[in-house]
Amino acid sequence: MSSMSDAWIRNAVAEAVGAFILVTSTLLVVGAGATPRALTYGLVVVGLVVGLGHVSGGHFNPAITLAMLLDRKIDVLGAAAYWIAQFAGAALGAVTVMLTTDREVVEAGTPRIADAMDVGGAIVLEAIFTFAIVLVVFCSVVDERAPLSAYPFGIGMTVAVGAFATDALTGGALNPAKGFGPAVVSGEWDAVAAWLAGPIIGAALAWAFYRFVIAPPGNTPAFGR
Amino acid sequence: MSSMSDAWIRNAVAEAVGAFILVTSTLLVVGAGATPRALTYGLVVVGLVVGLGHVSGGHFNPAITLAMLLDRKIDVLGAAAYWIAQFAGAALGAVTVMLTTDREVVEAGTPRIADAMDVGGAIVLEAIFTFAIVLVVFCSVVDERAPLSAYPFGIGMTVAVGAFATDALTGGALNPAKGFGPAVVSGEWDAVAAWLAGPIIGAALAWAFYRFVIAPPGNTPAFGR
Amino acid sequence: MSSMSDAWIRNAVAEAVGAFILVTSTLLVVGAGATPRALTYGLVVVGLVVGLGHVSGGHFNPAITLAMLLDRKIDVLGAAAYWIAQFAGAALGAVTVMLTTDREVVEAGTPRIADAMDVGGAIVLEAIFTFAIVLVVFCSVVDERAPLSAYPFGIGMTVAVGAFATDALTGGALNPAKGFGPAVVSGEWDAVAAWLAGPIIGAALAWAFYRFVIAPPGNTPAFGR
Amino acid sequence: MSSMSDAWIRNAVAEAVGAFILVTSTLLVVGAGATPRALTYGLVVVGLVVGLGHVSGGHFNPAITLAMLLDRKIDVLGAAAYWIAQFAGAALGAVTVMLTTDREVVEAGTPRIADAMDVGGAIVLEAIFTFAIVLVVFCSVVDERAPLSAYPFGIGMTVAVGAFATDALTGGALNPAKGFGPAVVSGEWDAVAAWLAGPIIGAALAWAFYRFVIAPPGNTPAFGR
Repeated sequence: MSSMSDAWIRNAVAEAVGAFILVTSTLLVVGAGATPRALTYGLVVVGLVVGLGHVSGGHFNPAITLAMLLDRKIDVLGAAAYWIAQFAGAALGAVTVMLTTDREVVEAGTPRIADAMDVGGAIVLEAIFTFAIVLVVFCSVVDERAPLSAYPFGIGMTVAVGAFATDALTGGALNPAKGFGPAVVSGEWDAVAAWLAGPIIGAALAWAFYRFVIAPPGNTPAFGR
Repeated sequence: MSSMSDAWIRNAVAEAVGAFILVTSTLLVVGAGATPRALTYGLVVVGLVVGLGHVSGGHFNPAITLAMLLDRKIDVLGAAAYWIAQFAGAALGAVTVMLTTDREVVEAGTPRIADAMDVGGAIVLEAIFTFAIVLVVFCSVVDERAPLSAYPFGIGMTVAVGAFATDALTGGALNPAKGFGPAVVSGEWDAVAAWLAGPIIGAALAWAFYRFVIAPPGNTPAFGR
Repeated sequence: MSSMSDAWIRNAVAEAVGAFILVTSTLLVVGAGATPRALTYGLVVVGLVVGLGHVSGGHFNPAITLAMLLDRKIDVLGAAAYWIAQFAGAALGAVTVMLTTDREVVEAGTPRIADAMDVGGAIVLEAIFTFAIVLVVFCSVVDERAPLSAYPFGIGMTVAVGAFATDALTGGALNPAKGFGPAVVSGEWDAVAAWLAGPIIGAALAWAFYRFVIAPPGNTPAFGR
Repeated sequence: MSSMSDAWIRNAVAEAVGAFILVTSTLLVVGAGATPRALTYGLVVVGLVVGLGHVSGGHFNPAITLAMLLDRKIDVLGAAAYWIAQFAGAALGAVTVMLTTDREVVEAGTPRIADAMDVGGAIVLEAIFTFAIVLVVFCSVVDERAPLSAYPFGIGMTVAVGAFATDALTGGALNPAKGFGPAVVSGEWDAVAAWLAGPIIGAALAWAFYRFVIAPPGNTPAFGR
C-alpha cells in the first residue's frame, strides 16, 4: 500500500472487523479462567490472520501497524486509517459485550496490573511479548525464506504464549486496541501505560531487530526448508 | 456443484457423517468442562475439514450451506440435500449418544441460554461468531489469495473461539444442526431462536460482507504471502 | 510397499519407536487430568506423523495398518511386521513407565470401561472415533485432492477429539496397541473387547466408506482448494 | 554453515533471543498449572521456529545444536557460539523474570526431580522425550520427503507432549538451556544431571537413529504425500 487507493477503506474495515471479533471473544471468555483466555486470544488471531491476513495484512493491533509504518510497508495516512479502525472496532466490541451481557464482564476483561507488579515491570513484560509477536510477524510474513502458509499459526501461537505469560501480571493486552476497547467502556485506565507504551516499545524494537540484524543478506541458515 | 450430478448423494452422505461425528463428540465431552468442550468443537472441525473439505466442501453446518447458496456455489436442490443430511446426521449423533450413554448427557449438551441473557442477546452472540466462522470460510476457501492449506485450521480455530466465547451464554451452537440434533432427543427447544436465527443471520451477513466488501478487485494487501 | 524390500525392517522399527513414544507419553500424563490426556494423545500423533509419516506411513496403530491392508497399500507380511512392531513398542513403553515411575501409573493408564457403560456401548464408541480417525487418514493422505501438508494435523486433531469424547467412558484407546501395552504390564484386560474390537470395526468401516463412497470419480466438490 | 561467515553472529543472536523468549515465557506461566506450562512451552517453540527456523535453524536448545554438530550441519565453532548464545539468552530470561516479578517465580520454575523419582529415571525420561523432539527435527527439517511447512508444528507439538509427560516428574526441561537459565538465578542445581545429561543422551541417540536407520536410501514409504 505504497500509495493510497480505493482499497484502503475496505482494508480499514477489515481491520475494524478483526479488532471487533478479537475484543468481543476475549472479553466474553474472561470469566472462564486463564487457559481459555490465553487460548482464545491466540486462536482468534490464527483464525483472523488465515481469513484476513491477505486482505489487510491481518494486524488488528496498532503496534503491528506502527512496525509496518516504520518499515514503510504502509504510509502514514494508511496507518492512521488502520489505527482508527482498530480502536473503533475494539471499542465497538466492548460495547457489544456490555449490551449483550453486563458491564461487569467488560470491567473484568480490562487489563489490570497485578498488585505485586510495578508499572515499569508491566511495561517491560508487555514490550517483551509484543516484541516476540512482531518479530514473528516480520520473520514469517515479510521474510520470504519462511515456511509457506505457516505464518498465521506462528503469529497466533506467539500471541497465546504472550497471553499465558502475562495474563496474571499485566492483563495480557500485547495490543493497545485490546486495552483501549474495554477501558472505554469500563472507565478503568490504570494499566494504560502497560498496554500502550509496552506494545509500542516492543513493536519498534522488533522492527529494528528484524531490519538491522535478521534481514540483511549473507545470513546463511544452519539448516532450513 | 452448479448442476446436480451423481456426486450429490455422496457429498450429502459426507455431510451427514461429518455432522454425526461433530455432534457425537461434542455431546460426549459435555461433562468434562468448558475447555474440553470448546477445544473438541474446534478440533473436530479441523479434522473433518482436512478430511472432507475437498469432498463435500466440509460445511457440516446449515448456516455455511446457506451462505454458499447465496454465493451460488451450490444450487437449491443441493443445499436442500445438504440441510437434510446435516440435520439427520446431527440427530443420529444425539440418538447414538443417548443409546450408548444416557439421555441426560444429551440434555446437558442441548444448547441453553444463560439465565442472565435475553433471547435477543443470545441471537446477537450466535450471529457474531457464526459471522466470524463463515467469513473465515469465504476468505480462506473461496478467496484464492489465502495461504494454501491453512483453511482447515483457520476455520476450526474460529469455531473454537466462538465456542469459548459463547459456551456459558448461549450453549455455543454456532450451527443449527448442533442445536437441532440434541434438541430432537432431549426435547429442549428453549434456545431454538438462538441456534437457528443467530447462525442464519451471521452467515448471511458474512457472505454479504465478503462478497461486497472483501472480494471486489482493487484490494491491495498491505502485505501478504 | 507392494513388494517386501530392505525398507520393511526400518519401517517396522519406525512404527515401534512411534508406538513406544505414544504409549510412554500418554501413560506419564495420565494423572494430570482429562485435558492433558486428550491433548497429549492428539499432539503426539501430530508430532509423530510430521516426523515419521513419510517414513513408515505413520500408523502407530494396528487398526490403521489393517485398513491399509484392506486397501492393499501394504501386504500381509508387511502388515504383520507392523503389528508386531506396534504391539512391541507399546509394551516397551509401558515397561519403561513402570521402571521409571511406578506400576500404579501403568494401571491408571490402562483403558477401563466406565461403570455406567456396557461393553457393547464401549465397542460402539471406540469404533465411531477410530472410524473418524481412519477416515481422515484416507481422505487426507490417500486422497490427492486433500490440502497439502495438512494431514498430520487433521489426523492428530481427530485423535484428540476421540480422546476427549471417550476418555471417561472407554479409556480412549482408539488403537489396540494403546490398550495392549499397558494391559501387558498392569494385567488388566477387562476392556480388551472395547480397545480391540472397537478400533478394528471402526477402521474396516472407514476403509469401506472411503473406498466405495468417497473415492469413486465423479465426486465434484461444492468448493475446494 | 559449513564455514564460518558474517552470518554466524546474527544467527547466534537469533538463538539467544529465542532462548530468552522461551525461558521468560515458560517461567512466567509456571504458577498457572500443568496445562498452561506444557502448552506455553510447546507453542513458544512453534512461534519461534516459524519465525527464526529459517534464520538460525531454530534450535534454542543446546541438545539440538549438538545433534546438528554430530550431523556436520554446523561446525564446532558455530556450535560453540550457539551454545554460548543459548545459555546466555536463557540466563538473561531468568534474570528478567526475577527483576520484573520475583525470585520465587524463578525458583518455582527451576526443574526439580519428583521425590518419587530417582536421578537415573529422570535422566531416562528427559532422554526419551528429547529423543522424540530431535527425531522430529531431523525427520521434518533435514529429511526432504517431509510435508512442507509442517516442521514448526511437528517440533512444537512434540515439545508440548514431552512437557506434559515429564512436567511433574523431572520439571520438563528437555533442553539444557531451559534448566540452566533458571538455575543460575535460583541457585537450585539438584536436577542438573536430568536436564543436562538426559537431553544430551536423547539428542545423540536421535541423531544416530535418524542417520543410520531412517535416512539411508531404499526406504519406501508405505504411503505418503
